[in-house]
Amino acid sequence: MNFRVIAKYMGNILMLEGAFMLPAIFVALIYKEFSSIPAFAITILLCLVTGFIFYKTKQTNRGIYAKEAYISVALGWIVLSLFGSLPFVISGYIPNLVDAFFETVSGFTTTGSSILENVELLSNSMLYWRSFTHWLGGMGVLVFLMAIVPMSNTKGGGEGLALMRAESPGPSVGKMTPTLRETARILYLIYVVMTIIEIILLFVTGMPLFDSIVLSFGTAGTGGFGIRVDSIDGYSYISQAIIAVFMMLFGINFSIYYLVLMKDFKSAIKNEELKVYLGVIAIATLLIFFNVKGSYDSSGVALLDSYFSVSSIITTTGYATANFDLWPQLSRFILVAIMICGASAGSTGGGVKVSRMIIMAKAINREIISVISPRKVKTITMDGKPISEVVIKNTLTYFCVYWFIAIGSMFLLTVLEGFNTEVTVTAVMACINNIGPGLDMVGPAGNFSMFSPLSKIILSLNMLIGRLEIWPMLLLFTPSVYKNASRK
Amino acid sequence: MNFRVIAKYMGNILMLEGAFMLPAIFVALIYKEFSSIPAFAITILLCLVTGFIFYKTKQTNRGIYAKEAYISVALGWIVLSLFGSLPFVISGYIPNLVDAFFETVSGFTTTGSSILENVELLSNSMLYWRSFTHWLGGMGVLVFLMAIVPMSNTKGGGEGLALMRAESPGPSVGKMTPTLRETARILYLIYVVMTIIEIILLFVTGMPLFDSIVLSFGTAGTGGFGIRVDSIDGYSYISQAIIAVFMMLFGINFSIYYLVLMKDFKSAIKNEELKVYLGVIAIATLLIFFNVKGSYDSSGVALLDSYFSVSSIITTTGYATANFDLWPQLSRFILVAIMICGASAGSTGGGVKVSRMIIMAKAINREIISVISPRKVKTITMDGKPISEVVIKNTLTYFCVYWFIAIGSMFLLTVLEGFNTEVTVTAVMACINNIGPGLDMVGPAGNFSMFSPLSKIILSLNMLIGRLEIWPMLLLFTPSVYKNASRK
Repeated sequence: MNFRVIAKYMGNILMLEGAFMLPAIFVALIYKEFSSIPAFAITILLCLVTGFIFYKTKQTNRGIYAKEAYISVALGWIVLSLFGSLPFVISGYIPNLVDAFFETVSGFTTTGSSILENVELLSNSMLYWRSFTHWLGGMGVLVFLMAIVPMSNTKGGGEGLALMRAESPGPSVGKMTPTLRETARILYLIYVVMTIIEIILLFVTGMPLFDSIVLSFGTAGTGGFGIRVDSIDGYSYISQAIIAVFMMLFGINFSIYYLVLMKDFKSAIKNEELKVYLGVIAIATLLIFFNVKGSYDSSGVALLDSYFSVSSIITTTGYATANFDLWPQLSRFILVAIMICGASAGSTGGGVKVSRMIIMAKAINREIISVISPRKVKTITMDGKPISEVVIKNTLTYFCVYWFIAIGSMFLLTVLEGFNTEVTVTAVMACINNIGPGLDMVGPAGNFSMFSPLSKIILSLNMLIGRLEIWPMLLLFTPSVYKNASRK
Repeated sequence: MNFRVIAKYMGNILMLEGAFMLPAIFVALIYKEFSSIPAFAITILLCLVTGFIFYKTKQTNRGIYAKEAYISVALGWIVLSLFGSLPFVISGYIPNLVDAFFETVSGFTTTGSSILENVELLSNSMLYWRSFTHWLGGMGVLVFLMAIVPMSNTKGGGEGLALMRAESPGPSVGKMTPTLRETARILYLIYVVMTIIEIILLFVTGMPLFDSIVLSFGTAGTGGFGIRVDSIDGYSYISQAIIAVFMMLFGINFSIYYLVLMKDFKSAIKNEELKVYLGVIAIATLLIFFNVKGSYDSSGVALLDSYFSVSSIITTTGYATANFDLWPQLSRFILVAIMICGASAGSTGGGVKVSRMIIMAKAINREIISVISPRKVKTITMDGKPISEVVIKNTLTYFCVYWFIAIGSMFLLTVLEGFNTEVTVTAVMACINNIGPGLDMVGPAGNFSMFSPLSKIILSLNMLIGRLEIWPMLLLFTPSVYKNASRK
């Protein structure tokens, strides 16, 4: 294990975080929130100093391998969240460190679960930072680092690819361009441009600029932190519609946008995952619309609420314009089903991911076919290309570990808290899928404040496990990873 | 698809069922339950006549392939349960056919869930038949058929192996002896002998003969139907201890007993699954014992209750001597954990199975190792022999489908019933794992009578899916299985 290179990454991440926190001070100055400024200033200083010390770790010539990449990502996200929670603690808005950590992990992992009973009590600069964590976490901090920092000890791109694999969502990450740095840059370019377009659209259609910016952060990262107690319900229909469309757009694999940029519309339209994703949204929206429209005065509003909820849940954002917990059973059923499914691979959305679902469905189908015609060996294809058996096995293994962890966490929560099954199950599912609200006490109208500190840490780990797609966090706690340091 | 051979199997199964129902009339005569006799007589007649008609289906020379075997098993178990429920309907003890079907499926699949509010109202002959379904379902009706009926169109044992694979629990079934017929006979021989030993032990230690027989049926099949409202709690400690030990024994892979019979003690003791299975029982028993003993006057009774509950739950039998739903959270946590784990492959127990858990754990571990040392290709072994990649992929796929079906069923029940999450989740888990009782309304003190007919059918299908380990039932509902009949 090359601990020095990991230390260097921690240094990079911390300095980056310090830099990213600067605009929060700017926001505090604009809104004259002078009590918030010291909290940010102290944290920025801590980030920069600690980061610089780590960054200056003496490096060896030894390269970075996959395991270092996984550990860097897992540790990096924990460090990021720890330092990111300091402004809340220092300012006293969230005095308890565990609470602040939970809230920040929820931000960076784009979960959107909150321990705050009334978010409107936070200062604007705190709200800005809270929502910005969604934006940074959505596309990934190491992907960002890759886009701006030249990798000193890269060996043929292996380092970057490993880091990207570890941080990016989905069963497999391909290079879109010959160099990974270029790929990371294009990803962030698309991300920034789309975010800016959303901000402009929201602003010109009448939303205050501050709201436009922070809600766009929450949409882009598919996070779901709002700044009002009633989430998005208080905004105009046109604002709701814009957010709904952008949630859907940020749930699409970003390589599709790259294909569009390259004017390869054919490949973009043919993409299997995209078709399934849009198809599921369309069908779910229509079914819910016909199911709920009786209780609405206007069909238009019913359709908007249906589409907004579907778009918010399938992308695991978590914004709400209607309290869908009160909808008829059929609609709730559809929402929970698409909640587990999740958004596309390579998007900022969470959940198990549409492409994993497609691969699993195809693997199950192949299993059935192999019984019908045992001699027919069938290759599973996606977008016309064969999927390697390794990816298939990884996908199946992923789903198995996913359940082991989810069930293990549910039981730990049961032992620690003794809440009813609905609260326990939906709290874990909301966290591990990075959704945000669960049902009952942790539903859209509730929050996570009643959990004990230990449970909050377990749920925080679940959010990280979900966002980093299991392996980095699992490796972090595997002792054998750290052995044989010299032999590698 | 060779429908004729399937029809022949249905015929065989029905005639067998008719024959197996005869002792129930004998029981009715002993207890002078003359009102129950016509119900059995009519059903037996129906079984034999319908069975004979099916049996006489003109056969072709075409052999039976895996898909016919799977369809025969799936359809066979449904037919078996349908005809098996007739005595309850005709006698009026369970007048509703859906209720009676649920109860009979629960019997054959060795689940032990009941729609009866007071089991003591049933006549002894009905109780006998109800418990006998556990015994027959435990080892499998087609395995029995294989042991006694010469297979006319067997091609090198492929037919029998396919049937056995389809009906036997566990990731892979090996031949213990050169011929499958011999294997089936040995399995049933061990099964019969162990059941008789249990009956004798219970009887000589003071239990009435009738109770000894029916409770042994329930133990052998790891079913869990009792004949008293308080399950096993009313019997003496020595009876409870005997049942506890035998539940554990029937949860062991039967090939271990064959090894013991062959005096190959070394292989028997070295068996990995056996070690894990016994280890889990020992640890779980001790943990629960120390957790609950404070609330007991006698440590001995506390230990007995702990061991009995662990033995009952891990084998998915479902008998109870203590209301473990009232135990401390830690104990409930342990019980639910071993509930999902289940018993050994190749035993009569349900659940996901210990060996599948071992294979999954090893696959996950390999995934971790492959990240640490990508070039090291590791073969997964069990008992020193390598496990084929096909078995590993099947095991992983199995677990994925298992969750798809479980979650789908939970949502259907939510839509149909609207009960709370705990009832819905534990009802489905209790059925698909063939356990019996869930929690809350479907807990040890409750029953399944409040579900609507459609939900009862869904839960019945879950029990069959669990007992037949998914694939036969899944194939039954796959349209493409029935296509291209001529080309095969």
